[in-house]
Amino acid sequence: MPQPRSPHAPANGRPPRLLVLDAEPLPRLDRLAGRAEVLHCDEKTLATMLPEADALLVWDFLSDAVRHAWPGPGHRPAWVHTASAGVDRLLFPEIISAPTIITNARGVFDGPIAEYVAGLVLAHAKDFLGSWELQRQRRWRHRETTRVEGSHAVVVGSGPIGRRVASTLRALGIGVSLVGRRERRDDPEVGRVHASESLPELLPRADWVVCAAPLTDETRGMFDREAFARTKPSAFFVNIGRGQHVVEDDLAAALREGRLAGAALDVFAAEPLPADSPLWDAPGLLVSPHMSGDTVGWRDDLAEQFCDNFDRWVANEPLLNVVDKRLGYVPHEPAQQGRPVRDEGTRGAP
Amino acid sequence: MPQPRSPHAPANGRPPRLLVLDAEPLPRLDRLAGRAEVLHCDEKTLATMLPEADALLVWDFLSDAVRHAWPGPGHRPAWVHTASAGVDRLLFPEIISAPTIITNARGVFDGPIAEYVAGLVLAHAKDFLGSWELQRQRRWRHRETTRVEGSHAVVVGSGPIGRRVASTLRALGIGVSLVGRRERRDDPEVGRVHASESLPELLPRADWVVCAAPLTDETRGMFDREAFARTKPSAFFVNIGRGQHVVEDDLAAALREGRLAGAALDVFAAEPLPADSPLWDAPGLLVSPHMSGDTVGWRDDLAEQFCDNFDRWVANEPLLNVVDKRLGYVPHEPAQQGRPVRDEGTRGAP
Repeated sequence: MPQPRSPHAPANGRPPRLLVLDAEPLPRLDRLAGRAEVLHCDEKTLATMLPEADALLVWDFLSDAVRHAWPGPGHRPAWVHTASAGVDRLLFPEIISAPTIITNARGVFDGPIAEYVAGLVLAHAKDFLGSWELQRQRRWRHRETTRVEGSHAVVVGSGPIGRRVASTLRALGIGVSLVGRRERRDDPEVGRVHASESLPELLPRADWVVCAAPLTDETRGMFDREAFARTKPSAFFVNIGRGQHVVEDDLAAALREGRLAGAALDVFAAEPLPADSPLWDAPGLLVSPHMSGDTVGWRDDLAEQFCDNFDRWVANEPLLNVVDKRLGYVPHEPAQQGRPVRDEGTRGAP
Repeated sequence: MPQPRSPHAPANGRPPRLLVLDAEPLPRLDRLAGRAEVLHCDEKTLATMLPEADALLVWDFLSDAVRHAWPGPGHRPAWVHTASAGVDRLLFPEIISAPTIITNARGVFDGPIAEYVAGLVLAHAKDFLGSWELQRQRRWRHRETTRVEGSHAVVVGSGPIGRRVASTLRALGIGVSLVGRRERRDDPEVGRVHASESLPELLPRADWVVCAAPLTDETRGMFDREAFARTKPSAFFVNIGRGQHVVEDDLAAALREGRLAGAALDVFAAEPLPADSPLWDAPGLLVSPHMSGDTVGWRDDLAEQFCDNFDRWVANEPLLNVVDKRLGYVPHEPAQQGRPVRDEGTRGAP
């Protein structure tokens, strides 16, 4: 998608008005003091305040509030930044057709999530939860564990998170097939990227299946009954993407029926996971509360990253991590940069 | 220690008599068919059968039976192989002073144990057991986890297991100080090896402390109250060496008093761990039943390794993995090889 090249608004010398859709605790934006008019809102006050904002920082990335509060032409922010890797909640038709530039927190979560996935893989191979259960019963029961070296993983999602998951698993001697939207034979970082169409042929070879994809119309519900029918019964499934990638009932059935050895979900169709969800006690399933990328200091890292981009914005430099609104993610190509432009209602949809 | 250079007995043309001290299931020694007279014994029959054996394969590595059954001069096997990395149970004075060569299972457990330790480190950093406990209560509670990249580990034991643990942790971005008996500044594999005397200065810097040492008089009880007083309260301790490396009461006290964030023990002073041991519910302690190295196929790997050495023996070639009986382990130097010689009682102690 061609990026707008016009300089940002405002051009009249006043500091830009930054609206922050907050969650607790507040992000540290001290660096912006004197250079931005920072206003805070919550989901209720967003609709009133958004039409006056030059930029919007979406701190509560699970909120649908932006969709509901999106203003009409002429009142839209030039730039929306979300403190998350996924932008699925933001990509409603009116924002896609607006000239508003969307940026995300690409890069902050890669390392933490890759470690998290590697930990899940090893914890399953070494049966730590089994040991923990036996320990509660004071039972000494020797089992054989499995090697991860020489095993094979299919990682779906060829963005920075999927790539980092792949390189971390490879560092443990695990062979990895990385799956993206399109095939690439000579990717400079990872060698081959498989097209998503080849996933059905890749799944039967996998000991580990990891979903690290962006949530788009193409990836929604991709891990369904049919996909789990192709995995080995000894395979382990991990989702650190979005809950909507998985048909949760199909996953629970595969676990109950022994067609999958285990799974770990860090994301769910409904978050927090309702207390009456059958997933809480699905056999072999580890539930965690959307925390795989959230290591100590993560909020500061997110704030720093936003402030860096803000510096570029006011200096009229191209922003980093610009989302391709048609694809639904930041494409993994060099020079994915653009300059935000405030939608003044004169251009119409691009 | 100089290795004996004489050819092995028997020289009279009969196939060597191999005695196997068994545990269940029996090892697969089919490869030796026709080339050895294989006899099986248990702890009760060992004393009767050992004086007639040319070689002894100790399959049940936790047994003290060899010590109790060791014959007098002139009736000792030329070669004793133990299907374990640790040889502490075998190194009693009468075998040390005998010309009998001892070999071990060096190499079989390195990779599995390194993966196990990496898994423990990640599982603690990502609080999988905390998630598991909350899941049982159907509670969604977000926590911040920690990065392992950029953290620091002290790995005690510079043999192949400690080295592989170090390289696997380094592959995850963890800085590692490797500690051996003596300092080495230019180790070709790992760079610097710290002397055990410097452990008190190294411990306060460690986020992870891993014991992978051989059990010798120098290492017995090295993780005691004093050692745990030097670790950070946020540190995590792992023992995959021998239970006797740790003063278990001191570890339990450190955990109870919050002077250590957590620990994982795979080995214990008494195995199986007695049902009334206070370790079963020490806070933050994961108990596992001496299985860190035992991945699927490990028994076959051990049997193959023994048969390979048997081939060398009957071909009169130097054996691999010869234990330095004075040091208590196979030294990590090139060309640690020797030829076994049956103690015919004519040479006396070397």
